[in-house]
Order: sequence, then C-alpha cells, then structure tokens
Amino acid sequence: MTNGTPPDLLNEWDRNHQLHPWAAMDAWQESDYHPIESAEGIYLWDAEGKRYIDGPGGMWCVQIGYGRKDMAAAIAEQVMRLPYTSPWTTTTDPSTILAKKIADLAPGDLNNVFFTTGGSTAVDTALRTMHFMNNALGRPDKKIVIAREKGYHGSTYLASTVTGKERDKSRFDIEKRLVRFLPDVNPYNRPDGMSVEDWCDAKVADLENMIEEVGAENVGAFIAEPILCSGGVIVPPEGYHKRTHELCRKHDILYISDEVVTAFGRLGHWFASEDVFGITPDIITCAKGLTSGYLPLGACIISDRVMERMTGPDENVLFSNGYTYSAHPVCCVAALKNIEIMEEERILEHTREITPHFQSRLRALAKFPIVGDLRGMGLLGCIEGRPDTPGTSLAAERKLGALLDEACEKRGLLVRPLINMAVFSPPLVITRAQVDEMFDLLEEALEEVTAEMASD
Amino acid sequence: MTNGTPPDLLNEWDRNHQLHPWAAMDAWQESDYHPIESAEGIYLWDAEGKRYIDGPGGMWCVQIGYGRKDMAAAIAEQVMRLPYTSPWTTTTDPSTILAKKIADLAPGDLNNVFFTTGGSTAVDTALRTMHFMNNALGRPDKKIVIAREKGYHGSTYLASTVTGKERDKSRFDIEKRLVRFLPDVNPYNRPDGMSVEDWCDAKVADLENMIEEVGAENVGAFIAEPILCSGGVIVPPEGYHKRTHELCRKHDILYISDEVVTAFGRLGHWFASEDVFGITPDIITCAKGLTSGYLPLGACIISDRVMERMTGPDENVLFSNGYTYSAHPVCCVAALKNIEIMEEERILEHTREITPHFQSRLRALAKFPIVGDLRGMGLLGCIEGRPDTPGTSLAAERKLGALLDEACEKRGLLVRPLINMAVFSPPLVITRAQVDEMFDLLEEALEEVTAEMASD
Repeated sequence: MTNGTPPDLLNEWDRNHQLHPWAAMDAWQESDYHPIESAEGIYLWDAEGKRYIDGPGGMWCVQIGYGRKDMAAAIAEQVMRLPYTSPWTTTTDPSTILAKKIADLAPGDLNNVFFTTGGSTAVDTALRTMHFMNNALGRPDKKIVIAREKGYHGSTYLASTVTGKERDKSRFDIEKRLVRFLPDVNPYNRPDGMSVEDWCDAKVADLENMIEEVGAENVGAFIAEPILCSGGVIVPPEGYHKRTHELCRKHDILYISDEVVTAFGRLGHWFASEDVFGITPDIITCAKGLTSGYLPLGACIISDRVMERMTGPDENVLFSNGYTYSAHPVCCVAALKNIEIMEEERILEHTREITPHFQSRLRALAKFPIVGDLRGMGLLGCIEGRPDTPGTSLAAERKLGALLDEACEKRGLLVRPLINMAVFSPPLVITRAQVDEMFDLLEEALEEVTAEMASD
Repeated sequence: MTNGTPPDLLNEWDRNHQLHPWAAMDAWQESDYHPIESAEGIYLWDAEGKRYIDGPGGMWCVQIGYGRKDMAAAIAEQVMRLPYTSPWTTTTDPSTILAKKIADLAPGDLNNVFFTTGGSTAVDTALRTMHFMNNALGRPDKKIVIAREKGYHGSTYLASTVTGKERDKSRFDIEKRLVRFLPDVNPYNRPDGMSVEDWCDAKVADLENMIEEVGAENVGAFIAEPILCSGGVIVPPEGYHKRTHELCRKHDILYISDEVVTAFGRLGHWFASEDVFGITPDIITCAKGLTSGYLPLGACIISDRVMERMTGPDENVLFSNGYTYSAHPVCCVAALKNIEIMEEERILEHTREITPHFQSRLRALAKFPIVGDLRGMGLLGCIEGRPDTPGTSLAAERKLGALLDEACEKRGLLVRPLINMAVFSPPLVITRAQVDEMFDLLEEALEEVTAEMASD
C-alpha cells in the first residue's frame, strides 16, 4: 500500500497530517511515531526490519498473537459474502451467533448484548443505559457516577468524564456534576504499618462514605475496572470487589464492571468479574480481547434485571443509542474466529498455566534496588520505580518509565511507560521460553537504567 | 459461521440476546429483524434467498457496492501483515498514507486528520476539539453548540446532545446546557406564499438571532450536515450554507460540517462542503463512505487554523482523546482501497453523470397524489407523503413510510421508512438500468399504497 513511498516522506506525512491520540500539543508536529511494518506471533517488526517482543500486546488486546491465516481467511470470506447491513432494521448470522456466545460466556443474567465500536462507546452506552433505566423508573436524579482515581474508561465526553487519570494534562472538558472520584485503591500506597486488610476496610469505607455524602438516591452507578490497568495495573485488595459490589446492591446502584482489558483471557478466564473476583455485575463492558484487536468491536452486556427495568408498556420508547458500525458483520466474524481459536487452542488454559511463571519472573525483579513495587495478575504486569532510591533524584525517579522503555526498545522489547512505571500485557500465546526471553531483556534493561539513574 | 444453525434458533437468539440500535422497548424481544445473508453489487439476499435492491446503500455508506474481491484481498493482506499496533506510540503506512490522502482531498487548510471508529466518535471528537481550543484561548464559556432540529449527529452522549431528532421517543439524557436548536430549515415546510429566497433569509436570521440571544462569546460551534439526511434528506435553500458560514466566521464560532453521509461521493464529490456548497469549514467529520462501510472508520479533520490555536508552548498539554481502534491499520487499508477503487473506476464522475436521471425519475413520482414532496441531491432522495390527501386520514398519512417500505420489500426493494417519508441512497455504482429498475418498483409500490390509503 505504500507504493514505494520513501520513509522520510512517510514520516513527514505522519507529522503533518495525522494527529495521534494523546499527542503532546507543544510539539505535535515534531514528534516521530515509531513506524511498525509487520507482525507474527508475539513479535513486531519496524520499518527498518528490527524485531521487537510486543510487551503491551498491541494495547492490551492481541490475545491470540499476530499473523493468523485462519483469521485473515474468515475475515476475507465475510467481506465477500456480506460486508455490511444496517443493524437498525436487519440482522446477520455473525452478530446473532456472537451475541448468543457472549451471553453464554458472561456471568449470571448478563444476557443482552449491545454491540459498539470499541471500549469507549461500550462505556458511553453503559452509562447512558443507566440514565435510561433511572428515567424509566422515575428517578431522574439518580445519575451520579462514582468512579476512581487512576481508573481509565475511554475518551468519549462521557467515558472521559468518569476517567480518573491525567486530568491535569489536558484541556478537554468533562461533565463534573455527573461524577465523583474515590481516592487511590493501590495497596502499595497504603500508609506505613497499615495491613492490607485494614487498607481494604478503608477503601470500602471510601465508597460507603461517598454514597452517604452524595445520597444513594442520587447515585446511579459505580464503574470499576477489576484491575485498574492504564492506571498502572493496580490490583485492589482481596475482598474489595465483593464488598463494593454488595454496597452497590444494597443501595440499588448499578455496578458497571469495565472489563475492556480483563475480558477474553487476560486473567485466564472469559470474564474476570465472577470467575476471578466472585461478583455478578449489572453491566459489563468489553472490547480489545474480544477480537484480539484484529478489527474494532466492543460490547455493552446488560443484565436481564436491568433490561426488565427499562422495558415498559409505553409505545414509541426507543433505545435510541447505536452506531452505523454496531454489530458490523465482518468485525463479528473476527470475534467469533478469535473465540474459536481461543477455545480450540486452549488459550485460557495456557494463560492460567503460564501465569505463575510470568508472575514469578516479574516478582524476581525485586532484586533491583531501583524497583519499588512489582504487581500484576494473569498476564498483566507492572514495574513501579522506588520513590526513595538512595543517591537518585526525584526527577530521575519520575523518568523510570521512559528510561526503561528506551533501554528495552534498544534490546528488542516494547513496554508501555507510565511516568515512573512500565506495564506489560503480552499476547496470551506467549510460551514459557518467550516469557524468559522477555524478562531476560527486562533484567538487562534494568541494569542499564540502574547505572543511568545512579549517574544522573 | 452458522454451522448449520436452523433459522428459527437464530431468530430466537437474536431476539433474546442482541439488543439492536433504536429497539422499541415495549416489545424488544418480540420484533424480528430481517436476516440478511449475502450481497453483490447493489443487491442483498436474505436468509430465504430473496433478492433486494439495497435502496439505503447499507446505512448511507456502501458507495462502491458489495462483493469486491480486490477489497477482500487488500483487507486479508493487511490482516496477515499487521492487524494492529497502538496509535499512541506507533504509526503505520496505511494510516499515514490515508491521513495524507484525506488532507489532499479535503478543502482548504483542513490538513489534520484524527481517526475515530465511526461518525459518532468523529462528532464527539470535533466537539471536544472545540472545548480544547476555547480552553486554550482562555474562553471557557464559549462552549454552547448551535445545532438544528432534524439534524442527526450520532449517539455518544455528546453527539446525541446536538442531535435534533426523535428526542421525544427516548429516555436517554442529553446535556441541555451545551446546546441550542434552530427550527426546521426545510423549504418544503415554509409558509404558504413565501418564496424560497425569503425562507432562506428567515433561516439565516434564525442563526443570527440565536447567536445574539446566547451571546457570541458563549457560542463555541455551529454543527450542520450539508444535507440533513436522517431528518429526511432536507436540502437547505440555496445560499444558506455560505451565509451561515459567514455568520460563524464573523463571530469566531467554529463551523463543523458533519459530512458523515455526504463525504466520499454521495453528491459526486469527495467532500460536499466546498465543491457543492462553496464553504470551507473549520472541522469536517466523515465516516461511512470513507470505507464504503466495509470496515468501521471515521475521521475528524481539523483545519490548520484550529490546530494552531490549540498548540501552545505549555509542556505536558496532551490531546488526550482517542481510541484503541483509532487509525486501525486494517480499516485504514479498507479506506485506501475504497478511494483507489473510486478513483480508478471514476465513481465520482459516474455519480455526477447518473444523478440527473436519478433525480428526474424521483421527481416524476409527483404524479402520485399521495406524494407531497420529492427532494434530494446527488444519489440522495426522499419521498414525503402529502399531508392533506383528500379522503385519507392523518393516521394513514403518518404510516406512508411503513406502508411504502412493506410494498417495496415485497417487490425486492429496500427503502428506509421515516414516519411519512421514505429515503434512499443506493450504492453509487448503480447503473442507469438499475435506477430504472428501482424506480419502476417504487412506482408499483406507490400504486399499491395509494389504493391501501384510500381504503383505510
């Protein structure tokens, strides 16, 4: 498709014509984005032919790995058969079968699937569903969403409103009156001497107090990622999910579990809410792993209980939400093929089997004094820098993510830097030998960064 | 992909598990959606093997027609080469080349392309860009959007907020304080005896008065489809676009041209704003025709002037908007192939050539007394029922869309019913003979509906 366009010219076009997500506005036409050319398995190749392990798995999404011929064939076949038809008036076998499949895989009575174009639109739909339900129930004031600091839920205006990250760095508006944020739930940040059990009590109390402060009659939903991924793979303390879920039930507050990252295998299960954390949410949002990122697709999965409370005998009340590309037949085929591959190749089982090795290689990085915390679950991991490394400045500490990123990239490993952290979520098909390859490179990189930070 | 699932079971799954856009909530598990199985050229086939002309062109999107082998091959090739990489940190040849191509095709200084997942997210991004710009300029109050009755802009919370359609039928919230609506611009609805020129003056005055009422210092943007498509293919009076555009410039109000339907050939040009209506907007949103609906993709195209006003020397100000599936490489390849096909097969030229015949067959339907208005432009058309057909009840008149839909479907033609209207926007590759086939069926259907309405 490049028709032999020289790399310099491509680079110039990208600078001058493509505005990327989260571009730095002081220098948006100066920064060069890394041109990626091809991919296979867990590896990416850049335009210069250099190979990298894809540590972030695309963007927490490429579960089955790259270069799947069966996926390409299934997609091409559906493109030829029926690339599009309107979901307003028609339906297709792929979307119908996928809706049924998702309902089967999802916990409890989460039986109603609304297809979207990704995670942001799934969250936007989930929150609008809460509006709809409470309007139908004659509770127009029960609309405030309780969300959490460091939570990430997407970037439509509404999804961005409930996101608790990086607010200070942006000039975008949010709808402040619709949201309240709970403070950090990360056990690593608990006060010195506090037990994890006491931290859990305190975090549950944060929600309880917020409900009391706002008034349960004004709180429409609590939205929570099972693990706060973009916020730095924050795993809330044991028991937190069940207790916050119970509080929501008690106050008739919808529990929206944002499983955009965790669903479809990241923690070794189709969905993490019930299988890993023992809760049955009212709404689950998913995307990413649903197609392994091969094509854009998201879903907002709504419980029967919520549907029943939206359904009334009034005529002409429409669920007037949806997109031209809701239930896109080609994207639904990609999701079906992705699920089929995961089933036939036992990728969930593999993920559960490889997890202890992945997590133990991660924890072994504790031997580096510049490392403060190592955390994760399933094939999710985070390295956070130590805030008080002797002989190291605060400025140097805050650069840990960028330094590690650079040192890893040099060695053929991509990670995702976040201030003083680096996170990773490799394709789930990663083998034991590849886990070792990845962590061996990380150890080399940490040695280099240790030296750099000491001399800074 | 159906693995031989019987049609009855598929139907049951669809009812019980897939919530469709705009589902009627009084009966959402009762209505059957028409199962479509395959497609070729301008034709769709349903699960029973019956063939239909695709009057709505999918959902105003399938420009190049169905069943394109070259498209399937290009998509499959990119799926194998590189199905995904994060737009946050990396770039790809397809997204870079497509951004450059769109910038070349778009009017004036609209040189900056932000990729989204469809029209709703393109509009959400356009409005958030206005927020960002006015915050950067120290004008936090200049945020109100002037939109129009019967305008349709999508269904994220923010896109839905500026949509002027079907409000009454829904229980979703909108953000009322952010929007004001101008009344109907349809020349067909002007008072008896008023000239179209006077109607245009009145419609321009509506905008002028609204700006004065709200205060220009509080108005951030005017958002307008060049033709209000979902509202019933409403073509504003001649001169309206230029004069409203001038008003916006005068008051430093961003003019957002929502070309989700009109861009990429619907009116015989890549973009309609300048080539058809003589204006250079500040922001153009597009989707649909960009890929001919083969895969989900949208774009928000921002002028250099707006970018410059967002760009400052402040460090750490990020354009913190974007989606996992922004600039998806496979979707970008579909758009590039779509544009290539349109260029090589001279589809814009064909559209301009076939338009007079299409529009003249449309206007010829005036011979049916139940028809009140016939309007359209390019390959967009609308039949609106006559509100005062002698011997016909108001209830019958309001059913014209549904009756016509039924009479057409029986004959192998899909149209899109809207209350007392039916709209169509067939694939741009439609031949002269196929235009005749379509209108011959429409005439037969109108004869049947005429008889039905008379006997109602």
